[in-house]
Amino acid sequence: MSDATRVAIVGLGVIGGSAALRLLDRGVTPHGYCSNDQDRIGAADAGVSVHADIGSAVADADLVLIAVPLDQLAAVATAVVGSVGETTTIVHASSLQSPTSTSLGHDAGRVIGTRPLAGNAGSGFSAAAASLFRGATVLAEDRASRQQREDIELFWSMAGATRIEYLTAEEHDARMGVASHLPQLAAVAMASVMSGGGIARRQLGPGGRDMTRLAGSPWEMWGPLLAASPASTLDSVRALAAELGELANLLALRDVAAIRDRWDAAGQWAVDR
Amino acid sequence: MSDATRVAIVGLGVIGGSAALRLLDRGVTPHGYCSNDQDRIGAADAGVSVHADIGSAVADADLVLIAVPLDQLAAVATAVVGSVGETTTIVHASSLQSPTSTSLGHDAGRVIGTRPLAGNAGSGFSAAAASLFRGATVLAEDRASRQQREDIELFWSMAGATRIEYLTAEEHDARMGVASHLPQLAAVAMASVMSGGGIARRQLGPGGRDMTRLAGSPWEMWGPLLAASPASTLDSVRALAAELGELANLLALRDVAAIRDRWDAAGQWAVDR
Repeated sequence: MSDATRVAIVGLGVIGGSAALRLLDRGVTPHGYCSNDQDRIGAADAGVSVHADIGSAVADADLVLIAVPLDQLAAVATAVVGSVGETTTIVHASSLQSPTSTSLGHDAGRVIGTRPLAGNAGSGFSAAAASLFRGATVLAEDRASRQQREDIELFWSMAGATRIEYLTAEEHDARMGVASHLPQLAAVAMASVMSGGGIARRQLGPGGRDMTRLAGSPWEMWGPLLAASPASTLDSVRALAAELGELANLLALRDVAAIRDRWDAAGQWAVDR
Repeated sequence: MSDATRVAIVGLGVIGGSAALRLLDRGVTPHGYCSNDQDRIGAADAGVSVHADIGSAVADADLVLIAVPLDQLAAVATAVVGSVGETTTIVHASSLQSPTSTSLGHDAGRVIGTRPLAGNAGSGFSAAAASLFRGATVLAEDRASRQQREDIELFWSMAGATRIEYLTAEEHDARMGVASHLPQLAAVAMASVMSGGGIARRQLGPGGRDMTRLAGSPWEMWGPLLAASPASTLDSVRALAAELGELANLLALRDVAAIRDRWDAAGQWAVDR
């Protein structure tokens, strides 16, 4: 794969659109398809070569990125696999999937999960940005072949990412429950408490705004992820509820020394590399 | 008060230092005092007229800003009140205090709480920034006299704030428990869960990083605040623990529709003005 590589992107929302914009900035014109009219028009206006169907968008592609909500992944993967040759590398940007996952259906073997640790709370092509993946880490499934890894590394580095980490789908799921689902659900819960306490978001300082930014994340992306969430999501939400309950007990007792122990440990974690 | 006004700042950490830097940028040289050697040296190097004691720093000041940790406020307030004339406006930047608060001692009447909704997770003059208060709201006690309000508004607008909101100490306390203490404690609890789950902070995406940034906040500022925290802090931490427990139950039941109801309400709160 090189700058002369043909890249196709199916799904032109925040993730697919941002990859497309970055490629355009670098002088590469991606081919694309999207079922959403607004996103399709936005992408075409930006310079993406937008096709009328998946088949023509991915034909002759060296690499196909599928960036659609999880509940559409199986159908799109089937359409892509049926339209490309044997040597095309196909990746998706949803959460990594267990090989036994039903999300990918019978095409699981051909489609490799590559998940950039980047995003924003917007949705659609209008929220895409060429800089979205700048400096990001991408988590990729370690079942990728050597050729697939070369393609994945070239593609995501062109998109701005600086690091690819390979792990199994199970390792990924266990990590994402804690690192991604937990903060997301905590922000939703925090918004609920603030709303109940009569606090508007504009009344918050920068810390409170940081802690509630994710409350605006799109359900259409998160609903399918939560419906299929791993055990680590549930476990970590319960652990956070328990930890907050313990902090509340210490506050009620005015046991500031015990709060400090937790504070210091959290502060140490925050600065550890 | 005008640009020819004499401003004195006692405590040259993030808050006092940032106000000083912004005044310097505007061509006003504040007088200052700080008990911390490093902060005193940093402020002097930046151009603050640093004095050897509080008395000489605040003498002849038209406005004195006290920006010290809450547990030092009473002693500093006494020293300041004893060194200025009757017409000097004295404000502090700690949380607003009830008139009966022991934090201010017998000088409560002279010292008005003015709390900028801004800050960062650093500490000391080296973490100060002239831009810290740009566009910020400042919460001020509504017992301020008309003259004090004029001085407060001029000072904080010089420091970069764009809005002053007057409220009682009780209203402020009730709000801060939810809007400030809750996000801070939630970030500490989140850091603990992530640490327990084997996740390093560098492995997080931007959402997870937002949700844990406050975990590095300095204990020396927060310890006294939590020791004196209002009932709303405890109530809201308990409410968040309960909300997370409820989300965990819905996750365990895979009741995605019920999670969506909460999600939509949180999203609506996030965009409400």
